Amino acid sequence: MEKNHRVVILGGGFGGLAAVMKLKRAPVEMILIDRRNFHLFQPLMYQVATGSLSPGDIAAPLRGVLSRQKNTQVLLGEATDVDPDAKRVILNDGATFDYDSLIVATGSQTSYYGNDSWREWAPSLKSIEEATAIRHKILYAFERAERADTEDEARAWLTFVIVGAGATGMELSGALAEIATETLRHDFRKINPQEARIILMEGAARVLGAFPEDLSAKAEKLVTGLGVEVIKNVMVTNISAAGVTFKRGDAVQQLAARTVLWAGGVTATPFGRKLAERTRAETDRGGRIKVKPDLTIPNYPDIFIIGDLAYAVDKEEKPLPGVAQVAMQGGAYAAKVICAHIAGKRELPPFHYFNKGDMAVIGRAAAVANIFGFHISGLPAWLIWLFVHLIYIVEFQSRVLVFIQWGFEYLTFSRGARLITGEAATDYIDKSSPASR
Amino acid sequence: MEKNHRVVILGGGFGGLAAVMKLKRAPVEMILIDRRNFHLFQPLMYQVATGSLSPGDIAAPLRGVLSRQKNTQVLLGEATDVDPDAKRVILNDGATFDYDSLIVATGSQTSYYGNDSWREWAPSLKSIEEATAIRHKILYAFERAERADTEDEARAWLTFVIVGAGATGMELSGALAEIATETLRHDFRKINPQEARIILMEGAARVLGAFPEDLSAKAEKLVTGLGVEVIKNVMVTNISAAGVTFKRGDAVQQLAARTVLWAGGVTATPFGRKLAERTRAETDRGGRIKVKPDLTIPNYPDIFIIGDLAYAVDKEEKPLPGVAQVAMQGGAYAAKVICAHIAGKRELPPFHYFNKGDMAVIGRAAAVANIFGFHISGLPAWLIWLFVHLIYIVEFQSRVLVFIQWGFEYLTFSRGARLITGEAATDYIDKSSPASR
Repeated sequence: MEKNHRVVILGGGFGGLAAVMKLKRAPVEMILIDRRNFHLFQPLMYQVATGSLSPGDIAAPLRGVLSRQKNTQVLLGEATDVDPDAKRVILNDGATFDYDSLIVATGSQTSYYGNDSWREWAPSLKSIEEATAIRHKILYAFERAERADTEDEARAWLTFVIVGAGATGMELSGALAEIATETLRHDFRKINPQEARIILMEGAARVLGAFPEDLSAKAEKLVTGLGVEVIKNVMVTNISAAGVTFKRGDAVQQLAARTVLWAGGVTATPFGRKLAERTRAETDRGGRIKVKPDLTIPNYPDIFIIGDLAYAVDKEEKPLPGVAQVAMQGGAYAAKVICAHIAGKRELPPFHYFNKGDMAVIGRAAAVANIFGFHISGLPAWLIWLFVHLIYIVEFQSRVLVFIQWGFEYLTFSRGARLITGEAATDYIDKSSPASR
Repeated sequence: MEKNHRVVILGGGFGGLAAVMKLKRAPVEMILIDRRNFHLFQPLMYQVATGSLSPGDIAAPLRGVLSRQKNTQVLLGEATDVDPDAKRVILNDGATFDYDSLIVATGSQTSYYGNDSWREWAPSLKSIEEATAIRHKILYAFERAERADTEDEARAWLTFVIVGAGATGMELSGALAEIATETLRHDFRKINPQEARIILMEGAARVLGAFPEDLSAKAEKLVTGLGVEVIKNVMVTNISAAGVTFKRGDAVQQLAARTVLWAGGVTATPFGRKLAERTRAETDRGGRIKVKPDLTIPNYPDIFIIGDLAYAVDKEEKPLPGVAQVAMQGGAYAAKVICAHIAGKRELPPFHYFNKGDMAVIGRAAAVANIFGFHISGLPAWLIWLFVHLIYIVEFQSRVLVFIQWGFEYLTFSRGARLITGEAATDYIDKSSPASR
């Protein structure tokens, strides 16, 4: 009996999963390796961070998704190294897996632009754990403000800074504004949550830099309407327990804020860097691996890079953005190439990214969308956003009710999942300043 | 203006919350202090541990529940000491709160009967964090079995022991059996989840010792029918990473099991012990404080103990069980007494516990119930159980959909929330035994 072509896929995100599913009926044997046992629906992560959804609502167990796909084995494990000449992947526990084709879809990690100490004070929204940590931080800030001894202290606890006005930054600041003005409206006795300051800082001259200018302006108007202060052309120079220091023109300013959230850039993961080293591949400044038009690494036609780790360009030589659509189409393309190779065909048209549209959500009934050149904003954009996400999540989870429930809570401004978890929910309380009353 | 009577309530569980809500229209000023910002619906905790519900589904933010109750302030904090003569509560951050009446509803914590080292290997089901840790442990065991090198290793990962066959032990073992035989049925390639052994160990001669004998027998039959092995009259003598050592008659046996869950007894919390010390109150072996018929501590008519921390007796001098009903009725009673005191009335009938019925759920459409002497089992008992819990959770959360969703998943055997979270999901992997393939 002929041995099946073995495909090892690293990462069960949008790209990896698309590849695996596309190869469902292919004459291959697949091993999908992921550090986590679930596929995460990243675009709704900010809903977990802001207490509208539970982690389980936006994640689908990989085994469940692939349970009937008999040519695929799912393994919990973390790849740390690769031997591209022996065609072998090495996991952190020493286990090795040989492959005929390798699809690397390990994604990216948050970049603090060299200031890793900021991470402690300004979590980002990359993992479920960070999302729940952000939720903890936000809700805890209001609790702490309620128990503050001085006006200044309460003010610092009620000041929230979001760094970076890309899609994530817009989502987070919009949701935070809604929490302060609506969700927590009646919940406190000493403080007024509506007095919370939510400040969105952006280095560029406009928010949502990836969108056309008119939609940027529209988005800024929408988020400002929710009560968010937008500060543009600003450079953050330090983040600490006390708050944010930033440069605006020549002036250096300080802002007392106990809650800072990081919605800045991303960079390659350690595994991505290791892979680049092993294959002597070129990378960009962010560590992304420059791939050939067929998404393989130069000299290694059996290693595909898809999603955030790939530096691929479109016809105008512009790099493709790190979004779910690019990853999913890349995964499907890699699967097609592998099938062609097995069938003996070597020449295939290069990967072409077909952009179905870009969307960013700001708040309830507030979003912007750029779809085939049509610029849409407000409620229509939000409905499109809702629909697209609904379709996807239903496909993966068969959990229609999650969305109904969430829509229901959205309308009623309630947030059922606003728990502060973690072993010591009260440990943040500054023990050096005993409050007495 | 006359100063309002100030009631400090420690703990926002079933007892504390019942007291607070009962005092909604009373001429008092209340401060509810809890270590967590949410009320937890403990009876469904096993659903979180077994991946059917998310933490947010069984918890209601205390501020949300009490948001319109203007005479109540909710504070996040942990009481560590009390000065019963100065009528003052002290928190761990040094803050103090004076009271006119104090309601202590701080509950209990898990007791390992003096073997605290077992905690590391056998988590219990007391907090949301423990519930998610148990979920992690269970799901991870199947992952590890799939990657095991030897038959013995796989067997140890597929052996689950639950210690204690009270309500929690029955729930956990029943749910575990359903996970193995139904939920994960098609999810693995090397192992067969249906071959998992689920062993329920009990020191007494029957399961559900608090129930009448016929219902115990019925419950054992139901849980055995799900595939659980019940071992009674057994004494656990050690729990380690390798498994459980136990005595059965004179024979000492060892069982290799990588997953052990503790559903044993409870004991007083450190605060409970401190309170007993400060008030020189009598306690039982488990540290519960012996209260007067009006639920106050002898010599301190302004300190009420309700719920798990109270050692109260019924007319037959039998101690009341540590269940939600007792706590809720105790809370309502304490509120009534406080109102009477304010109105100048001193003599009140003693607390009388009215038992509306006892229930234990074993699995899908499988439960036992003892309601006003009627012994019910199977589907009818399960429907009653479902109905009672539905009413309660809807009342607190206004989240009807949670239950609909859960019922839906229950019928389809899907478990949307089976995530392995925590910073290092793969760190459990034993680094000393590299697997190679």
